This record gives sequence, C-alpha cells and structure tokens, in this order.
Amino acid sequence: MITVGVVGYGYWGPNLVRNFGDLADVRVGAVADLEPARLATVQRRYPWIRTVARYEEVAHDPAVDAVVVASPASSHYEVALASLQAGKHVLVEKPLAATSEQAARLIDEATRRRLVLMVDHTFVYTSAVRRIKELIASDSLGDILYYDAVRTNLGLVRRDVNVLWDLAAHDLAIMDHILPRRPHTVSAVGFVHLPGTHEDIAYLTLLFENRALGHIHANWLAPVKVRRTLIGGSRRMIVYDDMEVTEKVKVYDRGTALDEGPDDVYEKLVAFRTGDMLAPRLDVTEALHLVAEHFVECVTHGRRPLTDGEVGLRVVTILEAATQSMADQGRPVSLKVSLGA
Amino acid sequence: MITVGVVGYGYWGPNLVRNFGDLADVRVGAVADLEPARLATVQRRYPWIRTVARYEEVAHDPAVDAVVVASPASSHYEVALASLQAGKHVLVEKPLAATSEQAARLIDEATRRRLVLMVDHTFVYTSAVRRIKELIASDSLGDILYYDAVRTNLGLVRRDVNVLWDLAAHDLAIMDHILPRRPHTVSAVGFVHLPGTHEDIAYLTLLFENRALGHIHANWLAPVKVRRTLIGGSRRMIVYDDMEVTEKVKVYDRGTALDEGPDDVYEKLVAFRTGDMLAPRLDVTEALHLVAEHFVECVTHGRRPLTDGEVGLRVVTILEAATQSMADQGRPVSLKVSLGA
Amino acid sequence: MITVGVVGYGYWGPNLVRNFGDLADVRVGAVADLEPARLATVQRRYPWIRTVARYEEVAHDPAVDAVVVASPASSHYEVALASLQAGKHVLVEKPLAATSEQAARLIDEATRRRLVLMVDHTFVYTSAVRRIKELIASDSLGDILYYDAVRTNLGLVRRDVNVLWDLAAHDLAIMDHILPRRPHTVSAVGFVHLPGTHEDIAYLTLLFENRALGHIHANWLAPVKVRRTLIGGSRRMIVYDDMEVTEKVKVYDRGTALDEGPDDVYEKLVAFRTGDMLAPRLDVTEALHLVAEHFVECVTHGRRPLTDGEVGLRVVTILEAATQSMADQGRPVSLKVSLGA
Amino acid sequence: MITVGVVGYGYWGPNLVRNFGDLADVRVGAVADLEPARLATVQRRYPWIRTVARYEEVAHDPAVDAVVVASPASSHYEVALASLQAGKHVLVEKPLAATSEQAARLIDEATRRRLVLMVDHTFVYTSAVRRIKELIASDSLGDILYYDAVRTNLGLVRRDVNVLWDLAAHDLAIMDHILPRRPHTVSAVGFVHLPGTHEDIAYLTLLFENRALGHIHANWLAPVKVRRTLIGGSRRMIVYDDMEVTEKVKVYDRGTALDEGPDDVYEKLVAFRTGDMLAPRLDVTEALHLVAEHFVECVTHGRRPLTDGEVGLRVVTILEAATQSMADQGRPVSLKVSLGA
Repeated sequence: MITVGVVGYGYWGPNLVRNFGDLADVRVGAVADLEPARLATVQRRYPWIRTVARYEEVAHDPAVDAVVVASPASSHYEVALASLQAGKHVLVEKPLAATSEQAARLIDEATRRRLVLMVDHTFVYTSAVRRIKELIASDSLGDILYYDAVRTNLGLVRRDVNVLWDLAAHDLAIMDHILPRRPHTVSAVGFVHLPGTHEDIAYLTLLFENRALGHIHANWLAPVKVRRTLIGGSRRMIVYDDMEVTEKVKVYDRGTALDEGPDDVYEKLVAFRTGDMLAPRLDVTEALHLVAEHFVECVTHGRRPLTDGEVGLRVVTILEAATQSMADQGRPVSLKVSLGA
Repeated sequence: MITVGVVGYGYWGPNLVRNFGDLADVRVGAVADLEPARLATVQRRYPWIRTVARYEEVAHDPAVDAVVVASPASSHYEVALASLQAGKHVLVEKPLAATSEQAARLIDEATRRRLVLMVDHTFVYTSAVRRIKELIASDSLGDILYYDAVRTNLGLVRRDVNVLWDLAAHDLAIMDHILPRRPHTVSAVGFVHLPGTHEDIAYLTLLFENRALGHIHANWLAPVKVRRTLIGGSRRMIVYDDMEVTEKVKVYDRGTALDEGPDDVYEKLVAFRTGDMLAPRLDVTEALHLVAEHFVECVTHGRRPLTDGEVGLRVVTILEAATQSMADQGRPVSLKVSLGA
Repeated sequence: MITVGVVGYGYWGPNLVRNFGDLADVRVGAVADLEPARLATVQRRYPWIRTVARYEEVAHDPAVDAVVVASPASSHYEVALASLQAGKHVLVEKPLAATSEQAARLIDEATRRRLVLMVDHTFVYTSAVRRIKELIASDSLGDILYYDAVRTNLGLVRRDVNVLWDLAAHDLAIMDHILPRRPHTVSAVGFVHLPGTHEDIAYLTLLFENRALGHIHANWLAPVKVRRTLIGGSRRMIVYDDMEVTEKVKVYDRGTALDEGPDDVYEKLVAFRTGDMLAPRLDVTEALHLVAEHFVECVTHGRRPLTDGEVGLRVVTILEAATQSMADQGRPVSLKVSLGA
Repeated sequence: MITVGVVGYGYWGPNLVRNFGDLADVRVGAVADLEPARLATVQRRYPWIRTVARYEEVAHDPAVDAVVVASPASSHYEVALASLQAGKHVLVEKPLAATSEQAARLIDEATRRRLVLMVDHTFVYTSAVRRIKELIASDSLGDILYYDAVRTNLGLVRRDVNVLWDLAAHDLAIMDHILPRRPHTVSAVGFVHLPGTHEDIAYLTLLFENRALGHIHANWLAPVKVRRTLIGGSRRMIVYDDMEVTEKVKVYDRGTALDEGPDDVYEKLVAFRTGDMLAPRLDVTEALHLVAEHFVECVTHGRRPLTDGEVGLRVVTILEAATQSMADQGRPVSLKVSLGA
C-alpha cells in the first residue's frame, strides 16, 4: 500500500486525486491547497482525506510515501525539492520547473537520494501518442521531415507563465518522446496582448540536424479549440487530431519521389505517391490512469520512469531558450550544449 | 470590344481564357504557349483563337489590346515588360515579378505609358475575403491582434520558386488588402526536402507596429489540403476556411478583457466574452470572373486596379525578404524602407 | 434536506448519484443494485451511503423521501409503483414504463397520493434543446415542416427492449417538448440482426395534422456515432448536432417561397431564400444537474415537473404503437385516441 | 467516328456535351433545346454544333448515330422512343421513363432493333461506388444488414416529379448495382410543402428477403447538403460520404457477435468487434467521362451496357411503387412480381 499526497487542487488536481484513488494498493492520504473552498470540496467528496493549507504538511507527513505536485508552475521547484528532501518520491505536473537550473537541481536531489522523480507529460501516455511512437519506431513513416503542431483555444491566460510553458510544453514532451533526433536550435516569436501579462500567442520553431523542422503554434486567444499535428515522413504522413472523438490518428500512405522524367517546359514536378489512409483503432484507457499507474509502479519497484527528470529538463531547456528568443524578436538560440543534440 | 491575348496555357491559363471568353465585349484573340499539345487543346476548344508558340507574337499582335501573363513566375517580368513596351495593358498572375526591382521597373513602365498594370491576386476578389474586409473596415473585429494562415497540400512542387512564392503569396495579398497596417519586419524558416529544389515547407512571420503578428504556414508536403485562417480581433474573431463548401467565414463574438477582480491564489485569469457565431451568406460568383471583369473595366475606363502594381510590389518585397531570412536560419529582415511601414 | 434513494447503479446510476450529491440540501441516502461489485464501487466512492441489493429496502426506507429509478426499463413500473405506494416521490429514467397501461397506472397512483412523478427526459434539460424550444416558441422558424433525427452508434444492444425504446425515446421526448403539435399516426420498420433479440435498427415515422412529418432513424449497428437532427421551418431551419463540442445548434436563415414568375419551359423552380447561419452560444451546465435540481424543487415546493408522468405516458404510447407497427411490416397505427391529437 | 446528338441543354446537358466532346472519335453533331438562350450558349461555346429547337430534328438527323436524352423526366419516353424508332442508339438520363410500362416499351423497341439502350446512372460509374462494389463482391463486408442513404439539400424543387424520382433514383441505382439481392417490398411516406407540387421530402424503405433493410431519406427542403450512406455488414461497415473531397469511402473493421458469456443481471450485451478504419485511395476520373466512354464503346462494339434498360426499368418500378405507397400513407407495396425478387 502506497500513500500519496497531492499538492494543489485547482484544474488538474481533482483528476489526479480521482485517478490515484482508483488504483488498487494506493490511497490518497492528504491534499494541500491554499484555497479553503477547494479543500471543502475535497472533504465533501472524500471525507477520509486529510486536507491542509500548506504544502509542507504534505511533504513532511510521515504517512505519505510520494508527493504529486499540481500547484502552479512557478512553485513546482520549491514543492518538489522540499518533498525530495523529506525523502518522498515525486511526480510533478509539466513543466518540471521554471528554469533548467532548477530542473537540474531536482534531478540531482532525486538521484542522490535514490528517489523517483517523474514529470507528468500526460500526452506521452495517451493511446494516440503511443501508437504514433510505434509507427515511427518501426520506420513506417520513413525519414521524419517535419512535425507541425497547432494548439489553440480561448481562455485560461495564466499570469505566471507564457503560452509556450502552458501549451507548447505538451508538444515538446510528445516530440521528445517520439522523434528519433533532438533539436539543435530553437527560435520563437510571440505576442503579448494585455500589458503586464506574458505572451498569449507564440510560434516556436525547432531545427534538427537532418534539416527537419519542428513548429508549434500555441495560442490562448483563438476563437476555436484546435489540437492538430501534422507529421511528415518521406514514406507516410500522419494527421493527429486530438479533438476527434475516435479517429484521432490518421496515417496517410503518401510520400514523395523526385520525378526522373524529361523536364517539363515550365516546371519540374515532384512525383507524389498517394495511397490509402488508415485510422488505427486506439484503446480508450484514460491517459492519466496510466500516468498514475506507471508512477506507482516505479515507486514500488524502483524503476526509472518513461518521463523522468531528464525528459522534464530537456523540455524546460527548450522553453527557456524559446522565451529568450521571443524577447529578442525571434533570434535563433542554440540548444547544442544543453541538449547534447 | 477589347481583345485579350493570353501567354501561358498551363494550370491557370485555361481558367483565364474561359473567364475572359464569358465577358461581353471581350474576345480572346491569341494564346501563346511553348507546348504544342496545349495549343492543340486551345484549338479544339476554341477554333477561332490564334495560337502561337512565342509570347512575342502576342505582345506585338496589333489586334491585341491587353496581355494576360500566365506563364511561369520566372518569366513574368520579361513577358510583362515586352507587352507594356508594345503598348499593351497587362494583367500578371501572382507574383508580379521575381524581384522587387523587376516589379518596380514594371510599375515605372506602365506609369510612363499610362497603361493598366494589374496583378491577379484572385483571393482578394472572392466573396469571403470581400466580406472579411468589410468586417474589419467597419471595426467589427476591434483591434486586429493576429492573422494566422495555414495553406498546405501534397504536390505540385515547383522548380522555379519556393513554396512561399507559390502559396504564401496568396495570404500576403489577402493581408495587404484587408489589414489596416503594414508589417515592418519579416522572418522565415524553411525546409528543402529534395536536393536541387527550393523550400517545400516554410513558416513566415510578420511583425506589425502595434505588436500584432502575422504568420503563414505554407507546405507542399502535407498529407491533407488545408486552407485555414484565424483572424484574432479584440472584439470578434474570424475563422476563414476556404475548404468549406458554404460556411467559409465564421465570425465569433469572442473577445478578451482583463479581469479586475481580486487575485486568484494561483493564477490571474483573463475574462473572456463568448457569444454567438455567425456565418454570413456569401455570394457564389467565381472570383476569377470578377478579376477579368475588373481588369477590362480598368482598361476601358482608365481606372486604377484594386490590385495594382504597387500591391504586387509590396507582396514581392515581402517574399524577397522572407527568402533572404530563410537563407539565414530565420534572421529577422526589416521591411521599413521598402514598404514604408 | 431531502434524502434520495437510487435504484440501479449500472450505466446511468453513477451520474445520478454524483449529480444529486452535488446539490445543496440533498443527500443520497441509499443505493440498491443486484450486483455486489457495483455496490462495492459505491462504498469505495461514498462510504457513507447505505448499499442494498433489493430495491424494496430503498422504497421502504423511512429515511428516504424520494426514489430515483435507474434500473432496467422492464423493471421501471414495479420499482416506481412500490415507491409511490410507500409514499415516496419518484423520478424514473426514460422510458417511464414498458406499456402505456403501466404508465397510466403510475400517473394515477402519484395523483391520488399527491406525489411527484417525473420522468428523466434528460435532453429536454440540455441548453441546446432549451434554445431550440425558445426559437420555435417565438415563431422564429415559421411553420414546422419536418423533424428528422438520426441517432446511431455501435454497441450496447439491449436484451430487454428494442432500439426505439432505447434511442428513439430521446427524440420523442424532445419532439413532445418543442413541437407545437402532436402526431396522429405512427409507423415503423425494423431489423432484428441477432435471433432472440429485439430490433437493432428501426425507422419510425410520425404524421402530424398539418401534414408535417417526424422521422427517427435509431441504430445500434452503425459504424459511427451520429446524433443529428434537422428541423425544417418555413422561415428558418435548424441543424442540431449533439456530437459537436460547441456549435451544437445552427440556425439557417433559409426558407422557401413559390416563385410566381413565368413558367420555365422545363421546370418550375421554387425560390429559396438563403441567408446567414447563426450558432447561438449555449451554456455548459450539465443537463442532468438541472434534472436533479428540478426534481428536488418539485418535491420541495410541490410543483408539477416539466417532464411529468403525462409526458412519459405520451412517449411510451408512441413507442408501443411503433413496436406494433414494426411487427406488421410498417402498417400505420393511429394515435388519435391515446394522444388526443 | 460516332456522331452524338443531345436533347436538352439545361442542368446536365452542358456536362454531357463537354464529356462527349472530349472523347476521341466522337463528335457532338447537334443539340436540341426549346430555349433560344441555351442554344445561343451552345453556339458561342461550340460554333460548329448544329442547334435546333425540336428534338425530332436530332432524332431524325441522318448524321446522328446516337441520341443522348437530357430533357425533363416527363419527356424521356417520347424522345427516347422516337430516337430508337429512327434507328438511333440511346442514352437516357435517369430516370429511364416516367412509368414502368414506358420503360418496358423502350426496352422492347431497343431489343427488336438491336440498338443500345443505356440509362445514365452516373453514380454507378464513380470510383467510390466501384470500390464499394468490389468490397461487397469480395465478401469483405460479410452479410449486408442494411443500406441507409441520406440525400438532402435546399432547392431545385421540380414541378414534374417528386423528390424520390429526382434524388432517391440515384440511391436506387447504386443499390441495384452493388447489393447482391433485390428488394421484395417498398413503402414510402412523403410531405408536400407547396400546394400543387409533388413531395419535397420523402422516406423510402425497402425490405429484402434476408430481412435486410434499405432506407432512403430524400429531401429538397434541408438547410444543408448531405450525401451520406451507411452500409452495415456483419463483418465490416462503410460510411460513404460524397461531400468529402478525398476520403469519400471509409471502411470500418467493425462487426457484431453474440456474447456467449453468462447473463448480465440487467442486460445481455452483444459483443462488438472494433478495429481500424481504412479510407481507400480513389481515382479522380470524372464519372460522366466514363459514362460517355462506356456508351460509345457499347455502340461501337455492340456491347450490353452496365446500366442497361433492364436496370433502368427496375429503378423506375420501385419509384412507381413508392409513389403509390406515399399516396396511401405508407402502405407497403409488393415488388415481387415486377422485380422477380
């Protein structure tokens, strides 16, 4: 039996409490939140859970084996560090920390104490992304030419981070998981709509060694919710649309080949191969259930998480560099040293 | 009665011949193309049209009043210049020319000779774009925050130009027409898939004085055809999807306002106003019919075209600067002098 | 404080328990279900709720004020009747009962005892249907010409009822609520795929006094989930698509008018007016929350429910007649006497 | 070289003239239409085609080998019969004739004179329908359980026929072509919106020997254009959506199997197999081009058309019986004798 403490019962916390609560041999022992109304909700729904205002009471609760950090991004480092220092395993919501230095410090702390440090890159655990990873790993797509993600909606402008840290973090986590290569350069441009806030709209570009491109459009000021990714391979291409109810992943048997025929007078056309489209069946397990299950398994058996601190660090490093680039009208920033690309 | 000569009977030429042929008081007198098979098609369909191989025979045909240039982009300048020098009015397919210098030279020539020089920015004449322009002009959208266009499909990789000159040119023409401001800086990154060709995928970013952003994703290597534009206003927002059969323009009564309430413990949310969505009825006249009609009217009555040489020059200037930026990993290029922004 | 007992914790029961549990001044006191595993789930989630196997223990529980019947359709009558006879107010899942005779008997019992009898026609409480009712009531659509509903998906073939009692019941409830007239005749054809089961696919047709048509396609054997209704008015028309995330209701400013011009040689065309399309903003309150709230309000203040026993009886009467018609290859069955149309 | 005469230059005639004109070894020699404006259009587009007002001049034109009948449905019989009697091969737009008696008479005439009689069931020649036929013929779908077609739009209410003869005729032609069995009974209900016109909305149901169902919703008064067919097989199911640009046919690897496990307390569920979805690549040849080509091939080589007079007669027979059924509130009408089902 593992006892989990959850820090933060805002947007994502309730889902975490529910999913950990549904696991066998796991109990949620304590929830911390600064807002009394939220704690009242916890008490009404789960009268047996201890509710506290300050996260320290969870971090130092002797009954707690592991802490789940679902507080605002700016507090991730402080809560996670205190929990690790108190000897708890830690699962942190994305992003792992607010700076790459903080992320590295958390990794050190966890390594030294032989504790599990996992970051909740939820999308990595979805059936859609798992299937896409299989397709890429089996070379079904051929060379990856580009990865283009659009993630837009109206609302939830956050005061503590810009839109990249909120929305693009998901796409960077997916790319880190499924792509065979790491980017060497990042650039980004953004738009601050309301004075005193961060960028609400941003475009982030990644360059890869083999000339491939990664691009993310993250937008809090869009009239419609879009979650749509194109992945171009030399052999096959994917449209991954997370707003679709069932056919989230579509694999197009389409590719290119240089036409070797005689030159056209006006233009030389590339020959395109167009074949069938296949939408594979995806299982319907809730991804967060798998996140919770995987974290508990890592804690129980001392395994390394699929989305460990290093993964979290790489994503934070790109976000940090992108934020720098945005401050400088889109100047490219090298990731070579930091990502070892 | 005006007699038109058409140079180039490839992809777009047949549509031009058909649309000019449908106008009253206009006849298509001659068509030039280097490919005999295409000329044979013209003769089968329109036995009365004179067909010639070389464009000079159209440019110097005394029966021809105006020349429509639908040859490959790299030849626009040469054909248009020769036609103007022979005293003909000229309608050029987009882009107006291959360089801003050439475009300026064509403007000079037309001005000096008091001839009409028009560029076929077809989308400007669609009912969708005309309606969007009305909405912006009437301040229905409020301040324009961003313009985001995606234009992708598989195929038709051109040898003579990169994907921006082919696809993004449409979006730049639309932006030039509907936006109240002009951009001061452009940057772009691109991906060359096949050695010896130009960029097949490119992302172009425009910065405007009031911090607004323009962004275009142009892509010849996508598995699906997308023609989708988001226009964010402070008061209303638009989704313009040209692949929709009837509801191409959707106006969302959505905007933002900084919430002045007490700070949330974790995050300060911006308040969003969400209201109805309206898809205005659009008329169904073929845009190219209006292009042809407008050109003939300008020729007949000596009017200045809506999409004159100056518009064509501005679009070419941005494309030229974007191509420079792409060659330099996305370094921002100033448009201040050239566009007078 | 009202105490509610819930009979049946299968597909819909958990949603009912959750929604009644979220209301102020309401507590769920007891849940009955024949399956021990389901009761175990109740106990894990809500340790304070009394769980019992037999519905009689809920019906006769002195602490219970009202019983919610979410057991299989074939048991609705028995459970509801016992509850009414024990002096409890009753909310029954649709359909109210398995026969019109049973439904009438329940109404009598409730009337005599002055108890609330409400049927959970959930869709009537959705923001989409409420908005459509407003549009029809305000004569925004003009005369209603037809109501066409498609409700298909794969799965959940029920043993105890045919597809009409399961799926078409929703559409009949909506029609009863929003249409100004009642049907006088029903016919239906169906298809039994698996021997020993009921119809999996059925088409139900309703005739109205003013010649208007109602039609429902209900299908458990479809590859895709469809929830799509067309409502044709002489002035405006509606597409109501419940699978859409946000734009569930689209109002088309389209209608007809007989063209009074000179006869065409070949065909006389009706003139169509086509205008804008408007998708009104819909609020996002969960409909079942409103159902629970409305039931509690009726119980507390002795009000007549919007979806009372009479409504439930009318829907059952049509389902009964349609089942008859299906058994007879689609022979029309008159509803005149029973519905008083 | 075959010379074709076309009677009727209204909605479909121009497409026929264009497609026959594009074939090698075929010339369009004459076009008849009662409207002078239409003939003027023919003359402007094709100055070499003889234009006449009366169809008899085409039917008796010695230069004409075959007559294409694209006049209104009510005149098909007269024009086709006169043409056959004048020794011409005949291609008739659907429906073949206004009554089954007329259709049978045309078949007799053609048979006796050894002339080709073909009906233009265009959809049979589309790549989508051809692919669906292959899938059914190869038993890829298993037993066909139902065929459900929706064909709606706003407009073009015809004076001479009801909506079934106009829209449902397409679906009946497709069903006749792809389904392994013929229906034995038809019923239909319809709605006449405007006095003095025919039904604008109709639902047609077909019963097959193996209990399978066919159903068509045809509607001229719908706010949106829908062309969507579900085909349910015991092994696989198809969604055929003709409004899709590229993925018109989607094959779902979904089927049913009676779950043989222990009875659930409340309901016995059928087990469903859900697998991948495949959208096969379809070629893009215009179907009408194949119609024209096939007709010319049949004329040239004396072949029997895929859509011969017998096919046309079967479709007319069903339409006739459905119209009867509509006049009688949906009473089922037997097709046994007439279709030999």
